[in-house]
Amino acid sequence: MGAYEYPLIIKQLLITPLRQCADQEIIYRDQKRFTYRQFGERLARLGSALQSLGIRHGDTVAVMDWDTHRYLECFFAVPMSGAVLQTVNIRLSVEQIVYTINHARADAILCNAEFAALLAAVRPLLSGVKKIVCLTDDGVVPSSVTWDGEYEALLAAGDPAHVFPDFDENTRATTFYTTGTTGNPKGVYYTHRQLVLHTLNGLAMLPFSDTDVYMPLTPMFHVHAWGNPYNATARGLKQVYPGRYQPEILVKLFVTERVTFSHCVPTILQMILAAAPDVDLRGWRLIIGGSALPRALAQAALARGIDVFAGYGMSETGPMATIALLPQHLRDGGETELTYRCRAGRPVGLVDVRILGTDGAELPHDGHSTGEIVARSPALTAGYAKNPDASATLWKGGWLHTGDIGTLDRDGYLHVLDRSKDVIKTGGEWISSLGLEDIILGNPGISECAVIGVEDARWGERPIAVVVAKPGAAVTEDEVKAMIRARAETGELSRYAVPDHVVFAESLEKTSVGKLDKKKMRVLYGAVKAA
Amino acid sequence: MGAYEYPLIIKQLLITPLRQCADQEIIYRDQKRFTYRQFGERLARLGSALQSLGIRHGDTVAVMDWDTHRYLECFFAVPMSGAVLQTVNIRLSVEQIVYTINHARADAILCNAEFAALLAAVRPLLSGVKKIVCLTDDGVVPSSVTWDGEYEALLAAGDPAHVFPDFDENTRATTFYTTGTTGNPKGVYYTHRQLVLHTLNGLAMLPFSDTDVYMPLTPMFHVHAWGNPYNATARGLKQVYPGRYQPEILVKLFVTERVTFSHCVPTILQMILAAAPDVDLRGWRLIIGGSALPRALAQAALARGIDVFAGYGMSETGPMATIALLPQHLRDGGETELTYRCRAGRPVGLVDVRILGTDGAELPHDGHSTGEIVARSPALTAGYAKNPDASATLWKGGWLHTGDIGTLDRDGYLHVLDRSKDVIKTGGEWISSLGLEDIILGNPGISECAVIGVEDARWGERPIAVVVAKPGAAVTEDEVKAMIRARAETGELSRYAVPDHVVFAESLEKTSVGKLDKKKMRVLYGAVKAA
Repeated sequence: MGAYEYPLIIKQLLITPLRQCADQEIIYRDQKRFTYRQFGERLARLGSALQSLGIRHGDTVAVMDWDTHRYLECFFAVPMSGAVLQTVNIRLSVEQIVYTINHARADAILCNAEFAALLAAVRPLLSGVKKIVCLTDDGVVPSSVTWDGEYEALLAAGDPAHVFPDFDENTRATTFYTTGTTGNPKGVYYTHRQLVLHTLNGLAMLPFSDTDVYMPLTPMFHVHAWGNPYNATARGLKQVYPGRYQPEILVKLFVTERVTFSHCVPTILQMILAAAPDVDLRGWRLIIGGSALPRALAQAALARGIDVFAGYGMSETGPMATIALLPQHLRDGGETELTYRCRAGRPVGLVDVRILGTDGAELPHDGHSTGEIVARSPALTAGYAKNPDASATLWKGGWLHTGDIGTLDRDGYLHVLDRSKDVIKTGGEWISSLGLEDIILGNPGISECAVIGVEDARWGERPIAVVVAKPGAAVTEDEVKAMIRARAETGELSRYAVPDHVVFAESLEKTSVGKLDKKKMRVLYGAVKAA
Repeated sequence: MGAYEYPLIIKQLLITPLRQCADQEIIYRDQKRFTYRQFGERLARLGSALQSLGIRHGDTVAVMDWDTHRYLECFFAVPMSGAVLQTVNIRLSVEQIVYTINHARADAILCNAEFAALLAAVRPLLSGVKKIVCLTDDGVVPSSVTWDGEYEALLAAGDPAHVFPDFDENTRATTFYTTGTTGNPKGVYYTHRQLVLHTLNGLAMLPFSDTDVYMPLTPMFHVHAWGNPYNATARGLKQVYPGRYQPEILVKLFVTERVTFSHCVPTILQMILAAAPDVDLRGWRLIIGGSALPRALAQAALARGIDVFAGYGMSETGPMATIALLPQHLRDGGETELTYRCRAGRPVGLVDVRILGTDGAELPHDGHSTGEIVARSPALTAGYAKNPDASATLWKGGWLHTGDIGTLDRDGYLHVLDRSKDVIKTGGEWISSLGLEDIILGNPGISECAVIGVEDARWGERPIAVVVAKPGAAVTEDEVKAMIRARAETGELSRYAVPDHVVFAESLEKTSVGKLDKKKMRVLYGAVKAA
């Protein structure tokens, strides 16, 4: 027996926190509190319970839950058992949920009782699923489904001394599905090695402190809540899991548990600001991702004391690619700082981000050469599950193609201009829909905005703005156009950027994860031009 | 062409600092300043120069230098070329230096002109060495050696656009020799993967800040200066390389460059305190390792404003194993804090430290069960070069055996009691020589101390203290014995711990890296007992 060949597997992330932070807390809503000591014991029990359910190395265990302490336990115990954790996006359509579970060939489902009716309805379609476990806050197990066990009862019967095995670090640990706006959801997947390196790289480069208190505000089914449950656990931080996102509960937990660190999409931030007009939000560090951080929203959050800044990544990138941490010289408290807070930031540690021209050649990092953002890191999906064509496109030339258009400047800051399919090509120029939205959202009477390109015989495409006015606000089409025209007159924008039409809508089309669904809007508003 | 299989190789550590911190500085003494931009270009030139010297993948390049910017360049460019960097311990005896260079089969030597006479003398013995390059501060190349080039001239002729290749992360990157007190020096070795993981794990768990300024005070030939040149570079920190350690230069650089972070053995700290009695040393964070941090020394450093604390590791462990970072509740400013600052601290991140009994079974983490300290981490040497027997002993049972005796408490703190060969076994009890030394050093009249066990027919061994009195101090044997006896009377120590003799010496025997050479002292003072 020679040197121990230390594999980078998820269980190794627990060595330090379980021994050194045994009294630290993991909290579920205002309902439950566990110490890391208890957490460690519950992981062992869960590992043993999975074994007794017949889960073997390489099997897939799907989880359908809100953001709970149970989910955190599954983040660890499922892959530590050698099984693959499928984090099911419970916001997908029923058809898509069935598709993803079957496509992943899930062997078992751990399902929150709240989704029992859904599960009962689709159970006959899930022919590969052999075991179903009920997750419940109150112990009430709905009778509509034939369960193979209830989570807490299984844990109670499990072995608290269960030992998780070593295995190859390239073993698959997790899978989940990303929904484009076309076709079926696509499965991405991550190995133990990738998740451990995502964690180490994140902790190495981000300013986590031992006294941080973490609460996710991006669902755990969405790219491992951006990896932060692994980060927070490895650092032994106090963690707060808020269950289903309800603004008043989120704000209450922030206050009572003194949360210092969260992350979310812009919509959630908007929701929180609106839900807590009188609450002191100072001390909350918030990374915004998933969509661009609108300048007006950032300003509103900063005014409330939130230390808000953007990050960038996607389901395929682990997700953490860049983050807008500002060095001292950019913290001027003014417009420059605001600009940088809203941009994507800089690549994190081992992440190698570049910009490629349409010919595939690398473009200079000069702040204006615009091309596709590509990346390499030790934590990117190796492809889409059972989809070699899409995988080959994703990894064309050995670089992961994000499908986003952007620039890099000489200090390494990435500026994401648009999704390549959302950029508006008009009269030979590229107009960033995100850029226009950011300007329009500066109008205090407008709460939401989407700029889309619609087909135009003469110019190829022309921009149209779809806006949602705030209740009682009197915003006009001319006023919105004038905002853009003013910027065009300073030379900041092309004069082709002024939208042909501004459509006032009650709400905007969104995808299952809350992003603007511009594909749907292009269909919906494509005819406006002709009107 | 599919997904890029991202290898953990040293060049990946440079992605972020070279792009994001291009204007940050690397400083050599009061002589030279480079930006990271220049550093990146010099690495490319060095890589190209190594190629033109005929260095190929798998070759070994030995470096003999003080702590210079050139050494930092070799830390990167040599392994990035696929070659193995041998960091030669220039404090070894000439015979040992020759032995280590030949044992490592070095193909080339990069040697500081200051060691030209030594090199000239032993050149005929270094039959495997094909190329010798001169490193010089002032451009003067000594004629005593037939050089194959001068470092700066080679760089000037090198290609600033040289691209370093990808290769397997398990490629060997570095090797160096550790001197026990018996036999020939033993070669340890590290792969790219190990060094990258040592860096990520260190950065993830230690409180580095972007505004830190780093200066090594542990030679770069000694376990990669504890890995910190890799840490500091990966984080894009300002770095200061002090050349040959001269107390007045070190203090001057601390002041002028506003150094915030260093690491050294206790002797260097003593030297600095003595050299700068009037300098404000606040703002200097100092990790002490290599030997135990004496309580009296820690107290003296704290009184001068240095944030001093211990770390623990060895040549075989990468080296970072534990570090005495204190959580808030241990920072009482008093005796408890002092105790914890002087202990080994807690394992860092992925490092798994345990205590084994003489039967090889794991002992409880209760703060008093005493046994051998063993470890696993992703950054431990896989063995000793070409020494299968010693390698098998090192890795007996799949754990790296440190040869140190210690305890772990329930909060994860490691207490290193002694080297297993230095612990004094008397009358069936184990006495920690380090513990006795720490008490004796509390005497203000004593500057250095070593406690050794000498053979005793009746008790097996008996402790003897060898002490160096401060100039002009009047310390007596009885006084020293009384200090120990007082602790024995409180029950803190065994009454067998009171040394039979206290020997006053002019100086203590030390090894090439400045540690107490107790083996030599046991021979030297073994007869005292009989006297």
